[in-house]
Amino acid sequence: MELVEVRELYRNKDQYIGKRISVGGWIRSVRDSKTFGFIVLHDGTCFNTLQVVYHDKLDNFVEISKLNVGSAIIVTGELVATPQAKQPFEIQADQVVVEGYSTPEYPLQKKRHSLEYLRTITHLRPRTNTFQAVFRVRSLISYAIHKFFQERNFIYVHTPIITGSDAEGAGEMFRVTTLDLENIPKTEEGKVDTSYDFFGKETNLTVSGQLNGETYAMAFKNIYTFGPTFRAENSNTTRHAAEFWMIEPEIAFADLKDNMELAEDMLKYIINYVLEHAPEEMNFFNQFVDKGLLDRLKLVATSDFGHITYTEAIEILEKNNDKFEYKAFWGCDLQTEHERYLTEQVFNKPVFVTDYPKDIKAFYMKLNEDNKTVAAMDLLVPGIGEIIGGSQREDDYDKLLKRIDEMGLKREDYEFYLDLRRYGSVRHAGFGLGFERCVMYLTGMGNIRDVIPFPRTVNHCDL
Amino acid sequence: MELVEVRELYRNKDQYIGKRISVGGWIRSVRDSKTFGFIVLHDGTCFNTLQVVYHDKLDNFVEISKLNVGSAIIVTGELVATPQAKQPFEIQADQVVVEGYSTPEYPLQKKRHSLEYLRTITHLRPRTNTFQAVFRVRSLISYAIHKFFQERNFIYVHTPIITGSDAEGAGEMFRVTTLDLENIPKTEEGKVDTSYDFFGKETNLTVSGQLNGETYAMAFKNIYTFGPTFRAENSNTTRHAAEFWMIEPEIAFADLKDNMELAEDMLKYIINYVLEHAPEEMNFFNQFVDKGLLDRLKLVATSDFGHITYTEAIEILEKNNDKFEYKAFWGCDLQTEHERYLTEQVFNKPVFVTDYPKDIKAFYMKLNEDNKTVAAMDLLVPGIGEIIGGSQREDDYDKLLKRIDEMGLKREDYEFYLDLRRYGSVRHAGFGLGFERCVMYLTGMGNIRDVIPFPRTVNHCDL
Repeated sequence: MELVEVRELYRNKDQYIGKRISVGGWIRSVRDSKTFGFIVLHDGTCFNTLQVVYHDKLDNFVEISKLNVGSAIIVTGELVATPQAKQPFEIQADQVVVEGYSTPEYPLQKKRHSLEYLRTITHLRPRTNTFQAVFRVRSLISYAIHKFFQERNFIYVHTPIITGSDAEGAGEMFRVTTLDLENIPKTEEGKVDTSYDFFGKETNLTVSGQLNGETYAMAFKNIYTFGPTFRAENSNTTRHAAEFWMIEPEIAFADLKDNMELAEDMLKYIINYVLEHAPEEMNFFNQFVDKGLLDRLKLVATSDFGHITYTEAIEILEKNNDKFEYKAFWGCDLQTEHERYLTEQVFNKPVFVTDYPKDIKAFYMKLNEDNKTVAAMDLLVPGIGEIIGGSQREDDYDKLLKRIDEMGLKREDYEFYLDLRRYGSVRHAGFGLGFERCVMYLTGMGNIRDVIPFPRTVNHCDL
Repeated sequence: MELVEVRELYRNKDQYIGKRISVGGWIRSVRDSKTFGFIVLHDGTCFNTLQVVYHDKLDNFVEISKLNVGSAIIVTGELVATPQAKQPFEIQADQVVVEGYSTPEYPLQKKRHSLEYLRTITHLRPRTNTFQAVFRVRSLISYAIHKFFQERNFIYVHTPIITGSDAEGAGEMFRVTTLDLENIPKTEEGKVDTSYDFFGKETNLTVSGQLNGETYAMAFKNIYTFGPTFRAENSNTTRHAAEFWMIEPEIAFADLKDNMELAEDMLKYIINYVLEHAPEEMNFFNQFVDKGLLDRLKLVATSDFGHITYTEAIEILEKNNDKFEYKAFWGCDLQTEHERYLTEQVFNKPVFVTDYPKDIKAFYMKLNEDNKTVAAMDLLVPGIGEIIGGSQREDDYDKLLKRIDEMGLKREDYEFYLDLRRYGSVRHAGFGLGFERCVMYLTGMGNIRDVIPFPRTVNHCDL
């Protein structure tokens, strides 16, 4: 008999109540008395479980009662409404077939395991409630992002993972090579002879697809990237991973204001999509992971985001410098404590900070008329701090070249980028959303290791 | 004035005819007579261009007439229906503002450029008709794949890019390292001391997410991956790239038959989605790139795929061995010439070949009862050959362990994978779709370098 998914039962129960159906899944728990027993069955298709009732009229009643947690079974029987019970229905089994046994050594027994312990079994932790919820929501956020941009006719661009340039200079990079490290070929000067490497030169893992993305925005008007990026930084925090995913939209015939509108619309769209499509999971997070999460997200989805310039923000922060470890002053980089003060205490909602000093921002950001600040924007959200960083890009050839020189960058690395300003340059802007930070923000999970299926951090690269 | 996208004009022209609107875009060509001129404007939002008519009543009439190809302008004026002309409407400009100039050196002049030449300017080629069509279709296929799986409640899993295991053994790998290649730390035995590397061990770029994906299928039932994969193979062909994207679904409580149904449904879904959402682009390919493409795709979308076992296929091929460079015999790996003969001559439609000899397939494929073949499937399509490869997985702990030993693999590398068979093993299956092959198949483009925005091949890693 065709298996019915538990999700389908919960979504369309009236079609199944009173019918004989088959369901396959994994046992979360078994308890039996002499003549009957209960199984909590989970099939992975939704957060909810299915209660199975079985009786001693089954030939394998004794065997069933002895099944270990984690065993896989296929249950056939009538789905019966249970209006008095906690769950809306149960299946009364007339057949239970074992698909795969488990053992008493199964690492996920029916008790609460710490997140630290579960990190040691990344191949099994998605079977727990917490990680069922996290990774279903992660999947839904991914899709919401694609849906948002595709509905707006943005082109999804796969920017390269292996890169021959260090052009963005956003951080430490991983080297990619096919050279034999036991026996590195050397030039006559004793340097690594990269002509023997796969690409005939030094290559690294990308830190950002932005510059490549811009070339496509100058062809398609609106584009986005969504792919893995890498930082070889030795930072062992709850917010940093060596491998993470980024979304980087880029829009042409658009300025910083359009950019902020896009970011705000996108974040609200994602929140609404997840609230609609994962209500059980979001309730779980709200109850067990981060009380107040739902109220906070609903507030964000319905309120207009705040706007403040960096200069205005510094004025506010300076008046409150007694509260900060790092004292704020005009020209300083904002610390997480500053960001959280602004979004949590001053605005109590997401806020865009704009127009940062040019000296603390990247070379490609558009210089404002004051010649001191650039058209940058960071979006700060309560509980996290910065979640999005972006800018209008410098579209003037001469000004861009000047910035490249001033910052000591090599012109020849940016010829392709300068071409975009030589041939039909257009006002444009874009931003980067760290995907994992977004998942943390929407789930309330506090450690980036718990929102990545198989996290990569310093000294950790398992499975 | 808010800019209207050219796509919007073509999709909802009745809303705009007779209205004064503004459109921003890039000039494909300008031609003028003494008192008026025409501009072909492209704004990147759709394949079609917009014809601009401008007159000498404009202050900058002379300047406009001298604009170089590639210049960016914003045109304001009335959109007028042109029922007698080739295009359905034109804009009669009362204002033309230059957004960004171009130069006579612009590398994309109004003439046909070879694909080889365009490969040398990957940052500009998306502005041409061919690459506008290719990369819009690539984006649409990506989204169609996500939509297909999400509508079926599959969980999108981001399997890792950097991997510490060589577990699948599918091909040559790229090493990922932060060691200083000029100065590799060595152990006392003179080997590379990987304890100094970022992850404290040797790491490489992934060749497949399948084994990781299986761990999630045993938790969520149905999952898919969609991410970059890598092969450091020195093969300079039109079908191989060092960096490409793969889709790998994995389904539990499912066998080879379910797997084939899924692959067939998916491919038909993608084709229908693209035909519906990119009619102009698909007509372009059909007319200029691959005549007969549309008929072939429509046939695929509406016909039931063929099915044949490897053993049956060999019988047919052996009778026709005079046609092949490599003679077919039971036990041989199928060559592209064999695959194309089967799908093009024997079936004239896509065909699944199943149940291959175990010795030419991977260790994880489920052994059939004959003990000689495994429950593998390859989908062959006309014009390409293999586009999808998959199998039911060995879900029996003892049989899997035996295969790992037989093939000389290290048990300790597969403990996590064996755990899936220790704890609630479930019949399951999956397949891999090479994304770029799929794009080539749907567009008719013959070289993989022309369906990847910034292709990576031996000795080529530009931008």
